[in-house]
Amino acid sequence: MSEILVVGSIGYDTIATNHGKVESIMGGSTNYFAVSASLFCKVNVVGVVGNDYQVSDLNFLKNRNNIDLSGLKKNEHEKTFRWSGCYEKSMNEAITLETQLNALAHFNPELPSPYRHVPYVFLANIDPELQLQVLHQVNRPRVVGADTMNYWIDSRLDQLKELLKKIDLLMINEGELQKLTLDWNAISAVKTASKMGPKAIVVKRGEYGFLLYMDEQYFILPAFPVYKVVDPTGAGDTFAGGVFGYLANANQDLTLENLKWACVYGCLMASFTVQDFGLNKLRQITLDEVERRRIDYLKLIHLNQPLTLT
Amino acid sequence: MSEILVVGSIGYDTIATNHGKVESIMGGSTNYFAVSASLFCKVNVVGVVGNDYQVSDLNFLKNRNNIDLSGLKKNEHEKTFRWSGCYEKSMNEAITLETQLNALAHFNPELPSPYRHVPYVFLANIDPELQLQVLHQVNRPRVVGADTMNYWIDSRLDQLKELLKKIDLLMINEGELQKLTLDWNAISAVKTASKMGPKAIVVKRGEYGFLLYMDEQYFILPAFPVYKVVDPTGAGDTFAGGVFGYLANANQDLTLENLKWACVYGCLMASFTVQDFGLNKLRQITLDEVERRRIDYLKLIHLNQPLTLT
Repeated sequence: MSEILVVGSIGYDTIATNHGKVESIMGGSTNYFAVSASLFCKVNVVGVVGNDYQVSDLNFLKNRNNIDLSGLKKNEHEKTFRWSGCYEKSMNEAITLETQLNALAHFNPELPSPYRHVPYVFLANIDPELQLQVLHQVNRPRVVGADTMNYWIDSRLDQLKELLKKIDLLMINEGELQKLTLDWNAISAVKTASKMGPKAIVVKRGEYGFLLYMDEQYFILPAFPVYKVVDPTGAGDTFAGGVFGYLANANQDLTLENLKWACVYGCLMASFTVQDFGLNKLRQITLDEVERRRIDYLKLIHLNQPLTLT
Repeated sequence: MSEILVVGSIGYDTIATNHGKVESIMGGSTNYFAVSASLFCKVNVVGVVGNDYQVSDLNFLKNRNNIDLSGLKKNEHEKTFRWSGCYEKSMNEAITLETQLNALAHFNPELPSPYRHVPYVFLANIDPELQLQVLHQVNRPRVVGADTMNYWIDSRLDQLKELLKKIDLLMINEGELQKLTLDWNAISAVKTASKMGPKAIVVKRGEYGFLLYMDEQYFILPAFPVYKVVDPTGAGDTFAGGVFGYLANANQDLTLENLKWACVYGCLMASFTVQDFGLNKLRQITLDEVERRRIDYLKLIHLNQPLTLT
């Protein structure tokens, strides 16, 4: 079993969906990623919180099995990163109402020495400048993945393009892929994006599942069906946690066949997150529950041999 | 090999997409359905054209293998049905700019006597009142399927609900399903729709493929990937033609396993239609080309056994 290094945001979210509203709950890409991936292997966290981050919220991560917080800093002069958003009826893409970078704006990631040799590195959604800073401090990781968002595509495109040249796996949602490539057809857009550098691209499509592109081949599957999607926030980071957790659990290289299953695990993990607000559902599940959904998922996509046409 | 009866619209479409604009080209649900299904088996057409329908356009259907037009009427006093629409960048749902029912508004479908015993009946998108009229004239078909659209959900809801009680298979796109059930989650919405009567429901999701619900089970797969979607008009009817063509080709009952493959054929057929305006691409393809895409499609969704988690 290997280990993962993740850098990203840790913060407080205020979220409104058609199932209700929650204020200032634990969120941020790192929280979702780490909770998801920690079911599979050890996750080393690099990040920053502000002076208003609750001890109980910090203890949640600290006490969780497989999470190492020695890379987490506290900025006593700033507040914690905050995000506020809502979802329309379809729930496939968040509408950002407000982003307060706070402590993240002054963040200067420094990796504790043991973190520099972690083989699986995920640069969760955060300023590409910071993602690059982390990348400069690691020593030949086996797989480097990154996520981004519209906010950075708008404000830090040069740095993002620099980053894309240095990563193996880009994980991006469909709207962001469109913005990055100016192409509304995901099939051709991933080809365009792959020319920007990444060996593999996973397009997250919300309730429609994902599209994986690697070695000029496509692999496309649906999401795990959920009757009641309460809050999709963090689903993408949870998905990434499943992808990296699966790869790192068995020390796998980045091949198309390995990534296929990694993405299926990503779907399964994300299907728990969306069933409740924030981390409420995800934090409670076990790997056994994930494995049970895997069996149901295989039924969902199972095809027997076709009849021969006459 | 069995036969299909289809009733629906035959008309002229004016379509604008980001790949161009075409004016008054051959269209209507029946044209797409019949051209698609005729690759698999004989299709008997019930419909009406007006006094402006071109002889060359009629000859196209007449001369095509496996299409019987003895149920097609010409109304000398009215113009042909016309639809005008456009697509936004994502191409997943048409925006109707104008619908002129013309001859369809005065249509009174009467089935030629041999048509009354055809085992596979598809009631393509047309006034639910006319769909019911056709249904009253057929004699215990093996499978009855129907499509509808927002226009009828708005204007003929009672008749549509009456129809839903009498059909086996509802084929509907995602936006229409939302409108019919007032539920934006497709997973729960198909359950609601199935309580309205149909044994099976196929939700057409454009570039995201389809969702099949039958016997309280879900089957979900992606669309066949297309690099350049020129015009999605008729994709849903083409899909339905593939579904019914596959079922009728080998005299299949409506079971979940049969419908799964029928839907895969639906996807494959639709993937040709969207590659050019109107029927331009679909009319040229052969069953061999469909079978080649089937092989590629199976690669697209193929998963080996997963590694065991440690």
